[in-house]
Amino acid sequence: MAFRMPQLSKSVIPMMDRVLVQRIKPMQKTASGLYIPEKAQESLNEGFVIAVGKGLVTSEGKVIPSELKQGDKVLLPAYGGSAVKVDNEEFILFRDSEILAKIE
Amino acid sequence: MAFRMPQLSKSVIPMMDRVLVQRIKPMQKTASGLYIPEKAQESLNEGFVIAVGKGLVTSEGKVIPSELKQGDKVLLPAYGGSAVKVDNEEFILFRDSEILAKIE
Amino acid sequence: MAFRMPQLSKSVIPMMDRVLVQRIKPMQKTASGLYIPEKAQESLNEGFVIAVGKGLVTSEGKVIPSELKQGDKVLLPAYGGSAVKVDNEEFILFRDSEILAKIE
Amino acid sequence: MAFRMPQLSKSVIPMMDRVLVQRIKPMQKTASGLYIPEKAQESLNEGFVIAVGKGLVTSEGKVIPSELKQGDKVLLPAYGGSAVKVDNEEFILFRDSEILAKIE
Amino acid sequence: MAFRMPQLSKSVIPMMDRVLVQRIKPMQKTASGLYIPEKAQESLNEGFVIAVGKGLVTSEGKVIPSELKQGDKVLLPAYGGSAVKVDNEEFILFRDSEILAKIE
Amino acid sequence: MAFRMPQLSKSVIPMMDRVLVQRIKPMQKTASGLYIPEKAQESLNEGFVIAVGKGLVTSEGKVIPSELKQGDKVLLPAYGGSAVKVDNEEFILFRDSEILAKIE
Amino acid sequence: MAFRMPQLSKSVIPMMDRVLVQRIKPMQKTASGLYIPEKAQESLNEGFVIAVGKGLVTSEGKVIPSELKQGDKVLLPAYGGSAVKVDNEEFILFRDSEILAKIE
Repeated sequence: MAFRMPQLSKSVIPMMDRVLVQRIKPMQKTASGLYIPEKAQESLNEGFVIAVGKGLVTSEGKVIPSELKQGDKVLLPAYGGSAVKVDNEEFILFRDSEILAKIE
Repeated sequence: MAFRMPQLSKSVIPMMDRVLVQRIKPMQKTASGLYIPEKAQESLNEGFVIAVGKGLVTSEGKVIPSELKQGDKVLLPAYGGSAVKVDNEEFILFRDSEILAKIE
Repeated sequence: MAFRMPQLSKSVIPMMDRVLVQRIKPMQKTASGLYIPEKAQESLNEGFVIAVGKGLVTSEGKVIPSELKQGDKVLLPAYGGSAVKVDNEEFILFRDSEILAKIE
Repeated sequence: MAFRMPQLSKSVIPMMDRVLVQRIKPMQKTASGLYIPEKAQESLNEGFVIAVGKGLVTSEGKVIPSELKQGDKVLLPAYGGSAVKVDNEEFILFRDSEILAKIE
Repeated sequence: MAFRMPQLSKSVIPMMDRVLVQRIKPMQKTASGLYIPEKAQESLNEGFVIAVGKGLVTSEGKVIPSELKQGDKVLLPAYGGSAVKVDNEEFILFRDSEILAKIE
Repeated sequence: MAFRMPQLSKSVIPMMDRVLVQRIKPMQKTASGLYIPEKAQESLNEGFVIAVGKGLVTSEGKVIPSELKQGDKVLLPAYGGSAVKVDNEEFILFRDSEILAKIE
Repeated sequence: MAFRMPQLSKSVIPMMDRVLVQRIKPMQKTASGLYIPEKAQESLNEGFVIAVGKGLVTSEGKVIPSELKQGDKVLLPAYGGSAVKVDNEEFILFRDSEILAKIE
């Protein structure tokens, strides 16, 4: 699945070491166009990074930028994050260190 | 929605890394002027920054100023913050690091 | 409401980063002199700083003085602090960092 | 009430940043010599410092001496501390930072 | 049991000090080819390291690489880690410091 | 009560900032030799230091030796410590910082 | 009881500041060869160090080697540690700082 940057009416700038993530929705149709019943849809812990904060501010005031950048495909933890709604689309804000892995 | 700086009879100076935020109230009328029943009003996790403290004081006594400034529109966490009342208007004081994101 | 320094028979010197605060009592009479029933009295989270400790001692032994000084009007958190009684007047001792904001 | 140094058969040297405190007992007689019933005796959160440890040892091995010294009258927290008995007299050991304030 | 690198359609890059581990499945057949009933299969707390993050980022922004590398056989803790599924194979992401030991 | 160094068949070397303590047993006879019933025996929070570890290892690898030494009489906290048995005698291992005070 | 190094088919290298310990089993026979019933066997909190990790990695990336080495006889805490099985023998992995004391 390719990255589709959501076209939002406003730009969201995560604070500090937060990243804005959009969870990939499970496939709702098969390749041949048949609808998959909701129960059979596989829940995915994958998402795309939509925006990245400037980085973690250490106790000495130094900024540590994230390893992540816009468009990165990531593995998300099963719990955590703060759900937010922008332009009626759902996003999650995670601390950079909560993201499990990048997928390439 | 544009930022309207509340005209308070006194100025509130948040301590340290705190920011004073006013939550944006959900729309109570439609564009055509009809009243929206309270249940149908969408709860918003957005607010405006009204005042910003001088910054986080590190364990070495260094001050780290906030990324935020007066008038910034922000995404607020679902929980946390200290509710206060000034001139009968409601505000919330958050630690700078609790604010999820800036919206532009 | 103007600051009235309580005339105590002894001086109280808060330890470290503590501040001694006297909560502002809700008005008990109207401007015209009528008594307000206790239930109708508005609870206030405001107080005056009566005394300030020498400051936070960092893990390196450095002292970080408080932003607050005697006579400052402050916004108090809904919880926390240690209630003490001096000369039968009630006070609260807060850590400096627990005070939400200064009001001017 | 003046400070009366208890005459102990042995000297107690608090470890690190601990202070040995003797709580001031509520008055049991009126000035004119009448006994005050126990219920009417006012509970006091005041005490005298009997002995002071050498100070807090920081994570770098530096010693930060206490602000307190033998004979200081102090305001005690409602909870905390370790009760000990020496020569059948009761004392409390507090961490230096638990003491609320000095009274002069 | 020799290390078999799973052939995944995408590469998973653990974030920070995380390591991607594949748990060794208990033997299902005896050496002579008989099936072992599921209850008699021994549960193993061993796994192979599939991928290693760039390392722990200290509070000063320094990166501390892991002691582990791809192909290492490791002892896993009984609890913890985040289960993920890639190409329908099951993996676990651990913080580097959660891994108990290397086996050689 | 004078310090009696227990004659153990092996030497116990506490790890890091631990100290090995032997609790002083309450007197079981009066001075004139009468047995005191167990209920009337006073529980003592006093003990003797039998052995001292090399000291606290700071997060920078520096060793901070204990204030205590073999033979010191100490005030013990009511809770905490790890009970151990050596040569059928009971001892307690405390972190150095848990010991309340030295008695001289 | 002398140290008997277990002959394992593989070598176990504890991660970081972990140590691999084998608990000493309580005596099952008397000196004269009589079996001791299981209830009468004394539970021992003693063990031998089988392997030691390279040491604690500080927040600055410095390695602090353990005070312990292979063959050391140690006092173990009543709780904690991670039980593992290697070649059907039982071992426990402790953080270096959990070990109570060395016995010589």
